[in-house]
Amino acid sequence: MLRTIFLLSLLFALSNASVQDFCVANLKRAETPAGYPCIRPIHVKATDFVFSGLGTPGNTTNIISAAVTPAFVAQFPGLNGLGLSTARLDLAPKGVIPMHTHPGASEVLYVLDGSITAGFVSSANAVYVQTLKPGQVMVFPQGLLHFQINAGKSSAAAIVTFNSASPGLQILDFALFANNLPTELVVGTTFLDATTVKKLKGVLGGTG
Amino acid sequence: MLRTIFLLSLLFALSNASVQDFCVANLKRAETPAGYPCIRPIHVKATDFVFSGLGTPGNTTNIISAAVTPAFVAQFPGLNGLGLSTARLDLAPKGVIPMHTHPGASEVLYVLDGSITAGFVSSANAVYVQTLKPGQVMVFPQGLLHFQINAGKSSAAAIVTFNSASPGLQILDFALFANNLPTELVVGTTFLDATTVKKLKGVLGGTG
Amino acid sequence: MLRTIFLLSLLFALSNASVQDFCVANLKRAETPAGYPCIRPIHVKATDFVFSGLGTPGNTTNIISAAVTPAFVAQFPGLNGLGLSTARLDLAPKGVIPMHTHPGASEVLYVLDGSITAGFVSSANAVYVQTLKPGQVMVFPQGLLHFQINAGKSSAAAIVTFNSASPGLQILDFALFANNLPTELVVGTTFLDATTVKKLKGVLGGTG
Amino acid sequence: MLRTIFLLSLLFALSNASVQDFCVANLKRAETPAGYPCIRPIHVKATDFVFSGLGTPGNTTNIISAAVTPAFVAQFPGLNGLGLSTARLDLAPKGVIPMHTHPGASEVLYVLDGSITAGFVSSANAVYVQTLKPGQVMVFPQGLLHFQINAGKSSAAAIVTFNSASPGLQILDFALFANNLPTELVVGTTFLDATTVKKLKGVLGGTG
Amino acid sequence: MLRTIFLLSLLFALSNASVQDFCVANLKRAETPAGYPCIRPIHVKATDFVFSGLGTPGNTTNIISAAVTPAFVAQFPGLNGLGLSTARLDLAPKGVIPMHTHPGASEVLYVLDGSITAGFVSSANAVYVQTLKPGQVMVFPQGLLHFQINAGKSSAAAIVTFNSASPGLQILDFALFANNLPTELVVGTTFLDATTVKKLKGVLGGTG
Amino acid sequence: MLRTIFLLSLLFALSNASVQDFCVANLKRAETPAGYPCIRPIHVKATDFVFSGLGTPGNTTNIISAAVTPAFVAQFPGLNGLGLSTARLDLAPKGVIPMHTHPGASEVLYVLDGSITAGFVSSANAVYVQTLKPGQVMVFPQGLLHFQINAGKSSAAAIVTFNSASPGLQILDFALFANNLPTELVVGTTFLDATTVKKLKGVLGGTG
Repeated sequence: MLRTIFLLSLLFALSNASVQDFCVANLKRAETPAGYPCIRPIHVKATDFVFSGLGTPGNTTNIISAAVTPAFVAQFPGLNGLGLSTARLDLAPKGVIPMHTHPGASEVLYVLDGSITAGFVSSANAVYVQTLKPGQVMVFPQGLLHFQINAGKSSAAAIVTFNSASPGLQILDFALFANNLPTELVVGTTFLDATTVKKLKGVLGGTG
Repeated sequence: MLRTIFLLSLLFALSNASVQDFCVANLKRAETPAGYPCIRPIHVKATDFVFSGLGTPGNTTNIISAAVTPAFVAQFPGLNGLGLSTARLDLAPKGVIPMHTHPGASEVLYVLDGSITAGFVSSANAVYVQTLKPGQVMVFPQGLLHFQINAGKSSAAAIVTFNSASPGLQILDFALFANNLPTELVVGTTFLDATTVKKLKGVLGGTG
Repeated sequence: MLRTIFLLSLLFALSNASVQDFCVANLKRAETPAGYPCIRPIHVKATDFVFSGLGTPGNTTNIISAAVTPAFVAQFPGLNGLGLSTARLDLAPKGVIPMHTHPGASEVLYVLDGSITAGFVSSANAVYVQTLKPGQVMVFPQGLLHFQINAGKSSAAAIVTFNSASPGLQILDFALFANNLPTELVVGTTFLDATTVKKLKGVLGGTG
Repeated sequence: MLRTIFLLSLLFALSNASVQDFCVANLKRAETPAGYPCIRPIHVKATDFVFSGLGTPGNTTNIISAAVTPAFVAQFPGLNGLGLSTARLDLAPKGVIPMHTHPGASEVLYVLDGSITAGFVSSANAVYVQTLKPGQVMVFPQGLLHFQINAGKSSAAAIVTFNSASPGLQILDFALFANNLPTELVVGTTFLDATTVKKLKGVLGGTG
Repeated sequence: MLRTIFLLSLLFALSNASVQDFCVANLKRAETPAGYPCIRPIHVKATDFVFSGLGTPGNTTNIISAAVTPAFVAQFPGLNGLGLSTARLDLAPKGVIPMHTHPGASEVLYVLDGSITAGFVSSANAVYVQTLKPGQVMVFPQGLLHFQINAGKSSAAAIVTFNSASPGLQILDFALFANNLPTELVVGTTFLDATTVKKLKGVLGGTG
Repeated sequence: MLRTIFLLSLLFALSNASVQDFCVANLKRAETPAGYPCIRPIHVKATDFVFSGLGTPGNTTNIISAAVTPAFVAQFPGLNGLGLSTARLDLAPKGVIPMHTHPGASEVLYVLDGSITAGFVSSANAVYVQTLKPGQVMVFPQGLLHFQINAGKSSAAAIVTFNSASPGLQILDFALFANNLPTELVVGTTFLDATTVKKLKGVLGGTG
């Protein structure tokens, strides 16, 4: 009888040989609209579901005095197909995560340390801003412009989570000024003056 | 026997009394995350599936020399739950639909008249710009910054379609300058200087 | 410091190396239920998001005096994964797009030229028919039988958009009469008589 | 300590007071695109998840010698929001479930008794037909025309299941001939002759 | 003119060359989060949509006096991408399908023979149990613990259907006792005593 | 001209009067399968998007020496429709979050303090266990049994996030022993002996 149940067990195992539970990404293969092809379940290890890069602050010695350390599917293949990803924000004093959007996900932010002023703007142009203390959570609806600023005198940090393994990250200034989008088009579509555009292109490495 | 089939027909009709096919919005009722409650099928008329407001150009006598005429669920209740909406763009000479996003939908644009330079910027800050002639189609992926500019000397027009009945529309300048988002926060999150911010707030009716 | 921001920019770019924004189809690779595998972002060009085949009327010199010119993912790979596709309808005088369904999408139709009588039938067998002028829009809910007929004396044209990159197109007469579905089965499942079925099979190239 | 765990238990119960597990339909309230509003969890009983109407054959004394007994959300409110529904098919000798589609769901069919010839036609007009014995299963992809015919000399029966609580059911002949769709439009969009159309309208109770 | 329509027909066929209708799994290729890559439509046969393994009872000569015969995508590749799968349950007298969940799907059960006591427990720990006769249907919401027990003196059987091609099947006892999860962890997370855990590990082939 | 743009601005605002961006729950209204009806946008405040209850440890003076503090839609109405929720876990020394599932969501866990041994079991009965330090992240696929145990000598804490506003929480011991599920059914479906079942029912307040 034990042999029977082992066979039964085997049957169930076989019936579950497909990766319906999870689909650890094979990053070497071409993506599909639903994510990467899976590595075979037999090669999946417990460590595939763990990411260790968010425990220490990112390097904030830069123009924004801030750092974003992503754990999206490209960094954390175990997330593939599971509809979640995460990231760490670090804000030195006066640090700022500039105005940006995530085209493919909503976001929740949990403040780890310090004080953070965060906000977003709705499609109706309404402004929702709050200054958050450690332990407070704020949610940012999908695709809307939002930002985080250090509101205190010491460093601040937060963990953010997205409901997509590939939420995307479009930073407004990078989108406008860190590429070859012609100054004329930036001016024409933002009503900024050419001097301002060219100055920011200079700072952010854009051309045109 | 005919009576039998009439009864059968009645049975099928009853089994279909729910609105699986469509769900014309009752705009007077509170929305849900999936859209508005439906009006009863018995009250649905053919005209509920037709929208007539896109046949004539919008008024382009304004600061952008352009107009967006939406046919979203709020204007066209028959779209509710069907995952589609549409709009008309009109661009007088030098007209521009400024840099904007749709947080909830991808978009296809079909040029009706004139010549339009359109483009979007990806999360990786790559720029995709093209000048389009009548009959050409361009697709803008969900949530990314994009724009349309009249590229010719005469008026231009286009029909755009979204894969959501409520795609949203966040116009960059309105989000930054047409509300009470404090100048200090705009400066801090965009690297624009305060003079520029205050000037655009003045033009667009913003405060703070 | 500039170097730092370049490195930061690089970090963001890397974190966005996956194709969360878009997924231009590699049509040479096997499809998946969610669409085609993507070509690598580095090979994506602005022209991948543009389709130029809808600007001129299709050839209506045929039995239906009409033409459907599709821009589905198979013709327009930039649509892959974006949940949208489009097509052009041309109707010579007396032209008709015969009764058909799109199994995988709802549809909005915008009349470009002429006058079109369009309609659909619901699951409850209710009929929704309207005659549309240029600039009018009609929506057809997913999966329901619908049709378009030239209602005027001149040519008519329309642009249709679907909320799927692969909406499918099942033309009723082709499904019933343009293949090897045995006449006996067609008769048995439609209550048409065998003479009618065989005649239409003759016209449409069906056998059996 | 027991009191503590009771309080803890209470906490968990409260945190689950929303109906994330299920949403038994309140059929008296207006539907939404995602289904009916839920009755309150406290009013839900085990019998809400049970349907008893599929155990006996439907009445096949009708023109198609067949019966469809649906257990969709309108008949079985416990299905609301769960993405499943079911139905029983009965086919007397020579019985047929005529050519039809389900606009909102794919379908699996399990033969209970007798022999059934079933088939569907793809968007590419390919025909997939099989004759099935008891215990065999066939799947019909969403939105495609399909049919079932009694292939034996005794009665046949099947259970079908759909991946929607409201799959819809559009029977081709009813859609074309059992309503007020004008004969001229039916003729124009199906290439059937007017005599055939009028005859079937007569049988199925249509007008126009 | 016939030639024209043949060409038109060809056009439609080509435009439908993608597998929007169905996507029969190529089980030799790596899965993606949305399922397996498709075999080419030209290689698809009617038999790909038929599964014949559920017509006869499974072998119930085992410790649970029961059998589950799955027709998931791994056994029935035609289901790939269609969002449905099915299985047969057989229960000898005193047979039981032990407490289990399907992580990825809701389930409907149709009793074929005998009498079955079935039930599930909600997130709020409420119990929903019913004893079912042939022809009765019960629905089990996604992810909740549920079970089926033979409630009569003869064999019982049921057909179950899931709204996923890969619903998963996590049998509680197998998850706890049929693998190498350390006894200490099982004890610590279930409050069972070590003796009980070790005994069941012994029966079910677990270690640790 | 300024007046024109104000009118234009008004037009955009009106076109965005629907809640496509967010849908703060009206918890007094009946839920739907997609969540609660929305409060009117005009009543939405910035604080609706903030939750303050996760900053301090929950009370761990209980049988499991642990606490779960949820911020699901029922506690945090701003999450409604956004597909995200969060919770705080506190584990005193020897504390344990017992074996449980979330029927409606995958989960990511971020360790705030201490050391946590966490793990899950797949449908194929494979075990994935890891001991995590502060800053490490682990993902738990939807619907699978998983647990967290304090692996150190001091208190531990974590923030978890789900990709649903109503993920559900089914704690194994509560589902089996904290309700009126008859002992006979528990024994029959789990292979535990009646003495064990009755003892745990006693501890957890179950009957039957």
